[in-house]
Amino acid sequence: MKTSLDCIPCFVRQALEAARLVSSNVATHEKILRQVLRWSCDIDMNQPPPVMGQRIHRFLREIVNIKDPYHDVKARQNRMAMNLLPEMKSKVEASSNPLLAAVRLAIAGNAIDLGANSHVTESTLLKSIRQALTTPFIGDKNAFLKAVTEAKRILYLADNAGEIVFDRLLIEKLEPKRVVVAVRGAPIINDATITDAHTVGLHEIVQVIDNGSDAPGTLLNDCSEDFKQHFLEADLILAKGQGNFETLSNEPYPIIFLFQAKCPVIATHAHVPIGTLVVTQSRYKRLPYGEES
Amino acid sequence: MKTSLDCIPCFVRQALEAARLVSSNVATHEKILRQVLRWSCDIDMNQPPPVMGQRIHRFLREIVNIKDPYHDVKARQNRMAMNLLPEMKSKVEASSNPLLAAVRLAIAGNAIDLGANSHVTESTLLKSIRQALTTPFIGDKNAFLKAVTEAKRILYLADNAGEIVFDRLLIEKLEPKRVVVAVRGAPIINDATITDAHTVGLHEIVQVIDNGSDAPGTLLNDCSEDFKQHFLEADLILAKGQGNFETLSNEPYPIIFLFQAKCPVIATHAHVPIGTLVVTQSRYKRLPYGEES
Repeated sequence: MKTSLDCIPCFVRQALEAARLVSSNVATHEKILRQVLRWSCDIDMNQPPPVMGQRIHRFLREIVNIKDPYHDVKARQNRMAMNLLPEMKSKVEASSNPLLAAVRLAIAGNAIDLGANSHVTESTLLKSIRQALTTPFIGDKNAFLKAVTEAKRILYLADNAGEIVFDRLLIEKLEPKRVVVAVRGAPIINDATITDAHTVGLHEIVQVIDNGSDAPGTLLNDCSEDFKQHFLEADLILAKGQGNFETLSNEPYPIIFLFQAKCPVIATHAHVPIGTLVVTQSRYKRLPYGEES
Repeated sequence: MKTSLDCIPCFVRQALEAARLVSSNVATHEKILRQVLRWSCDIDMNQPPPVMGQRIHRFLREIVNIKDPYHDVKARQNRMAMNLLPEMKSKVEASSNPLLAAVRLAIAGNAIDLGANSHVTESTLLKSIRQALTTPFIGDKNAFLKAVTEAKRILYLADNAGEIVFDRLLIEKLEPKRVVVAVRGAPIINDATITDAHTVGLHEIVQVIDNGSDAPGTLLNDCSEDFKQHFLEADLILAKGQGNFETLSNEPYPIIFLFQAKCPVIATHAHVPIGTLVVTQSRYKRLPYGEES
């Protein structure tokens, strides 16, 4: 999807919040803010929003000279989610449809997103998860189940730290041997990297690769050749989170997006009310999925 | 007060909202947004926020070539408030302290502010007003009453359209013959001008002047000589609203500010919780008012 005019005030606000999170120096906050304003003046609105996110956070890491400013945040989010894992696992197993229950939880885990909301606490997360277990999601679940059942090679694009604990529950239900999980290639906000995948033990049940990019989404041109090979060979791509939706929603590949619509621009683009748990497909190449199959 | 870094994302957001309010052309929205971003890159943080507000809205009026883009909004707000006037007048008269009740209502009327909140409806206003009649406000009311009683020449700086209907109730209680009301010198957002003062009949009970400026506050250097004369000769200035507080809070004059703290930056500057009804004085020249008298 393209960048909306509404994304611009949000970039500026998020840049300031991020600056304050990684530095206590007001002069640094101002320097970052002014630079982001300068870039925003000439922004190419045809690019998806994560292009600006990548630029902002590269600059931020350079300015504070820290390779992974969100290291501690991600560690906390992983711990928080791991603490909930046994309870969630029981809920999935006790469900009448464990696969669908796992899908719900994987989308609920998408509440852990520092881009859209910087103040997720354990109680917010728990509340979001409990709601997700009963909230209906938008999307044709039977068609989703069919696509998932028929696929031989599934590429699972992870989103955030913490959230990948919930992804693990879903991946266990998808028969891990036909799944490859891809995480970001380098630290960017609280997005999951190889380190997070190892922390939550994802590598013990499934092949984990990284995409070679530090964008908060999947910008194919910015990804490694190895990742692109996996991307092209998969007959189903499950893409978690808003960043992956923003970067891939117009791409002609067999993608199903699983995310929580946390911002009004994305909710509008996906034609859903804000806050919705969404299961939707990429715009061009249609899967045997939903009304448009 | 100076401009805070937090004001910048807010300028950008407000500029986009304002652009959409005055034009349905997306290219115009983008042009306005990019210009505001360009100015924000090099903003002088030592200036109060209304300096940027003035610049944005001058540009906006120029781009859409409309002298008063908020004309209809203001007319609606005046009507809305006039409809409530008889009920409010009764409440003031029935109160055990009519002057204080009128002060509360005048501050409650400050909820009509398109700068901080573009979606004020009649029911929001009514709710805000009913709350204001019982909510305690922050400030020493006895010292305020003393200052108001002793003053011989009161200059009353109005803020928004609609709100001036409630100002009228307070001015009636202040003995109008020692009061001069000043409104903005030209249309700026929904701030009250001479037209609004006439619409609500303020000129029938008190002398009304304009300040000669189109800033959404009181930038003394930008005001007319006539206004400045009134300003210097008054022994008490009652300044309504956030814009007047932002521009005058550090000025060495005998000012009492009456406003609702609607944004976190102003709430912090005034040392009050957000949402509070505030009666406070200017920083430098102390009035016989409160603890610091």
